[in-house]
Amino acid sequence: MEPIKSFAELTKHLTNCGRTRVAVANAVDDHSLEAVVLAIKNGFAEAYLVGDKAVIEKYEFIHDPKAASYIHIINIPDVQDATVEAVRMVRNNEADVLMKGLVNTDVIIRAILDKEKGLLPPGNVLSFTATFEVPGYHKLIFLADPAVIPSPTLEQRRAIINYTIATARKFGVEKPKVALIHATEKPNPKIQYMSDYVQIVEEAKEGKFGNVTIDGPMDIFLALDKERGAIKKVPTPVLGDADILIFPNFESANAFYKALIAFAGAEMGGKLEGTTKPVVLTSRSDSIQSKFNSLALACITAHE
Amino acid sequence: MEPIKSFAELTKHLTNCGRTRVAVANAVDDHSLEAVVLAIKNGFAEAYLVGDKAVIEKYEFIHDPKAASYIHIINIPDVQDATVEAVRMVRNNEADVLMKGLVNTDVIIRAILDKEKGLLPPGNVLSFTATFEVPGYHKLIFLADPAVIPSPTLEQRRAIINYTIATARKFGVEKPKVALIHATEKPNPKIQYMSDYVQIVEEAKEGKFGNVTIDGPMDIFLALDKERGAIKKVPTPVLGDADILIFPNFESANAFYKALIAFAGAEMGGKLEGTTKPVVLTSRSDSIQSKFNSLALACITAHE
Repeated sequence: MEPIKSFAELTKHLTNCGRTRVAVANAVDDHSLEAVVLAIKNGFAEAYLVGDKAVIEKYEFIHDPKAASYIHIINIPDVQDATVEAVRMVRNNEADVLMKGLVNTDVIIRAILDKEKGLLPPGNVLSFTATFEVPGYHKLIFLADPAVIPSPTLEQRRAIINYTIATARKFGVEKPKVALIHATEKPNPKIQYMSDYVQIVEEAKEGKFGNVTIDGPMDIFLALDKERGAIKKVPTPVLGDADILIFPNFESANAFYKALIAFAGAEMGGKLEGTTKPVVLTSRSDSIQSKFNSLALACITAHE
Repeated sequence: MEPIKSFAELTKHLTNCGRTRVAVANAVDDHSLEAVVLAIKNGFAEAYLVGDKAVIEKYEFIHDPKAASYIHIINIPDVQDATVEAVRMVRNNEADVLMKGLVNTDVIIRAILDKEKGLLPPGNVLSFTATFEVPGYHKLIFLADPAVIPSPTLEQRRAIINYTIATARKFGVEKPKVALIHATEKPNPKIQYMSDYVQIVEEAKEGKFGNVTIDGPMDIFLALDKERGAIKKVPTPVLGDADILIFPNFESANAFYKALIAFAGAEMGGKLEGTTKPVVLTSRSDSIQSKFNSLALACITAHE
């Protein structure tokens, strides 16, 4: 498979892969519904809209004949109940992907984390991978974790890295280049995560992360900017060509992420990691395009 | 004074303010020298180039008649000695600004930190403020600390905030809006710096930081992006209009900074803080424009 290098290529790829069944928890907001209808029209989704039927049916665009036959409404007006039902459908294989509609994040997270009825196997690390298309960069960037774990332990870092690698592979990246991000390329033994980095680079050399290149610490220039990175004269196989960025903490991943969205014209999609099935957990400030990208990301992950 | 909203406005402003005396430590690289000559031609600098005279004189452009009369060469071929001499000149009021030439950062930092002969008063916090001009943002952004202190204490945070406020005031920002950055606007009591933020917001209300607005925790969208920030419906006087960003740690400031440079076409200048006189401490990967901006920043700081 040729690597997928943009969201447009991802959509095109998905069009030939059949429809993924998406259960939307409290599917009553226009943003989520528009993204779902767009995915249906692009031929890669079939939707189970759980929520207040009367509210859902008021949206004109869901009655579009090109979409209507792939939309099934499950009438549960209560937010909490609708969320639990959407999770149950995914857990019971009645749907392949869970998507958040108009639900507070804590409510859907609680349903996902439920030990009896949720989607997180015991011992799994919950994390978040963002996929970015940035004008000026030659391919997609996968990064973690901007949202869930403030300051990961070594074990959590390993899990986060494995999640991003698995996602990159779904995009056809055969040997992903992983950059362990820091403010500079100089190791600072006083900083807690530095020993994690040393350990992870070592384990990567032993093949414990599969067919990948992992290097660091390095800064954003070394990871993504060949010209500015080269001035540092640091020998690294990643130089200006990283596929994956692993950030030391969620503040740095989050600040980087939002800088690209606000000022660099970047497109993104996000995915919760660690669950048995893909979960689309978009936030209020995401655009319809970004919700659509996240859905596409979940659908490609759901395959095989 | 009308606020200065771009580096072009800063240069224009400085042209009418007389010349600042700049001592350049080991001024033997073309990048630093070009930036200095540009500052001379723009009428706001006079240069004391400390270094190997034979090497310095080889650069054609320093003999430009528009610059030559404001250039004084102090012939000290040894890097270490040249650095110590440049620091001495600034300490003894023979120059107003110290600029790093072709010297390793640790060498010049050691000279600055020297208790007998350096530029850091005892008890002062050493930090770094970056000033950004970002296409798509309506004014300059001052941010700290992307380089010096990995994880500031409460006392260091107070000092960092005061430095950025002082810098913003030099640019004519009367009542700077300061955003305390986090991954979200939700306080998380498990995170160490959150209590610092609460304390600082409280102290700001009591007037301890002067005529400023300080709010947080908040994310980059709330601080800088009115449209995306407003979706969160968080009441804050900063909303999309921050002058100053205070980051929780240097990885997040650094990642944000380098994202803007690499992908958003941003221009920046940087300044070391805490020293008795302004210090221009540019790095290898800075452009000539960015070194020139940093010099302009130091010169406006040196005034009054």
